[in-house]
Amino acid sequence: MTQDTLYHLAIDTNEDLPKRFGDIRFVAMGGSAGRMLAFAKRVQNELMNSPKANEYIDRIEMNELNELKNVSEKAGRYCMYKIGPVLSVNHGMGVSSLNILLHELIKLLHYAKCRNVVMFRIGTSGGLGVEPGTVVISDSACDELLDDYYKLNIMGERHWRPAIFDRSLVDELEQLSNEMKRNYHTVRGRTMCASDFYETQSRIDGAICNYGINEKIARLRHLVDNGIRNIEMEATAFASMCRYTGIRCAIVCCTLLNRLDGDQVNVDKSTLESYQIRPQELILAYIRKHL
Amino acid sequence: MTQDTLYHLAIDTNEDLPKRFGDIRFVAMGGSAGRMLAFAKRVQNELMNSPKANEYIDRIEMNELNELKNVSEKAGRYCMYKIGPVLSVNHGMGVSSLNILLHELIKLLHYAKCRNVVMFRIGTSGGLGVEPGTVVISDSACDELLDDYYKLNIMGERHWRPAIFDRSLVDELEQLSNEMKRNYHTVRGRTMCASDFYETQSRIDGAICNYGINEKIARLRHLVDNGIRNIEMEATAFASMCRYTGIRCAIVCCTLLNRLDGDQVNVDKSTLESYQIRPQELILAYIRKHL
Repeated sequence: MTQDTLYHLAIDTNEDLPKRFGDIRFVAMGGSAGRMLAFAKRVQNELMNSPKANEYIDRIEMNELNELKNVSEKAGRYCMYKIGPVLSVNHGMGVSSLNILLHELIKLLHYAKCRNVVMFRIGTSGGLGVEPGTVVISDSACDELLDDYYKLNIMGERHWRPAIFDRSLVDELEQLSNEMKRNYHTVRGRTMCASDFYETQSRIDGAICNYGINEKIARLRHLVDNGIRNIEMEATAFASMCRYTGIRCAIVCCTLLNRLDGDQVNVDKSTLESYQIRPQELILAYIRKHL
Repeated sequence: MTQDTLYHLAIDTNEDLPKRFGDIRFVAMGGSAGRMLAFAKRVQNELMNSPKANEYIDRIEMNELNELKNVSEKAGRYCMYKIGPVLSVNHGMGVSSLNILLHELIKLLHYAKCRNVVMFRIGTSGGLGVEPGTVVISDSACDELLDDYYKLNIMGERHWRPAIFDRSLVDELEQLSNEMKRNYHTVRGRTMCASDFYETQSRIDGAICNYGINEKIARLRHLVDNGIRNIEMEATAFASMCRYTGIRCAIVCCTLLNRLDGDQVNVDKSTLESYQIRPQELILAYIRKHL
């Protein structure tokens, strides 16, 4: 192709992508736009207080109002911020929305000639047998049938792609977490990636539900017995696509509730915010260490 | 349950939902937040110029700046506007994101005691054998294996739910479209719902691609031969969930390109806007007729 339009990012190859994005070394993503802007601001603060602040200041993209610039705003799909060597971007909800973002991000990093980039998903999730607020570092990812694969129908055929994380990165994050002062638990475990929030996660509070509370609890206990510590909606696609393209990646999620105790997410705003910061703190510590 | 929190909408049953939302009769949704705000403004303009403007004016939710209010802003997931009897909301990309919205919308309509609500998806899509800018009214929806079902893994088992549209609604929309003055084509046809934008849609411009242009064209021709006129990423879930819960629904999409001619979406901004307005015009005509 003479030109490639990354349609959902509002970026194309007509500009000098190595010049603008060639310094990227860390990509952080999560579901909601607000959370990823908050993370971008924490990174900005970190860089501006580092000994190399002078190097970074011109590598942070700002808008006319002197705020962090959403570089994908024109596409109206994702919010992406460039803060020196860090990209912070929201992926929306579910594997499909994440998949589009990853295809276009991976092309962007390729065109920009970035090397040894590490990708993180910092998310929210439902916990299984862990206290609300616990942080889970995923060491494997499965679908609702407990297959550790991302399944796609391509050219009329079913493809199973292994959903495997980089073991050394998981180890390093666990080590870093153990070194941090914190008043919450961090565990590593298997993450189930569900294709919806209600039925495929065995919730009984959706608009459609054809099973009772006893079947639900039996199913959730079966998941616990199979090593699953949390449920979210992106893990298999994230692990599989990064592995396929040779990018080291990890998922760190806070749990908003223990699903063995209920289905409803109704933690108050300040508690929710304190939970959401936990994965951000860990990834920020990783970035700080490797800057 | 004594209380139900619609977590992703930032609405709960502690307030008087029949009073606030009981007048809803039409729900319009689409992928991007900007497009659904634009549609909300068109509806607002329509209502304010109708003979019953006085009835509607207090039923339009505005914020402190006297702009249409995003009633789900606090959740940070979807943008939803209430304009008299119309809800306009964005569903993000992919069946998973749409599914969460539908569960919570259907519960909202139930709690608010709404009756005979009609739901529309007004989207963008890739066309198959039709001129760019053509409007497609979906008369059936299939997945990438050409099964007219929405498939979900619930409690460890695979479920196939028929993805069927209300025939009379499709007929009425086609009739209405034929009565409109327009300089573009409108067709009815089968819509393929893909789980990603690249590989499952047979694109060759993604970050991962294991087939060539000849296989791609053969596959796309096979889709055309099976009645498929456009490809998007939400149709099976939308048709299936609405049918399951007894809600009449339809999908009207503009096509941004003819996939037999290429993969890249690089229409210019004004052309894109003129395309996106087409499904909005049709749904607005339907609402006007039934107000």
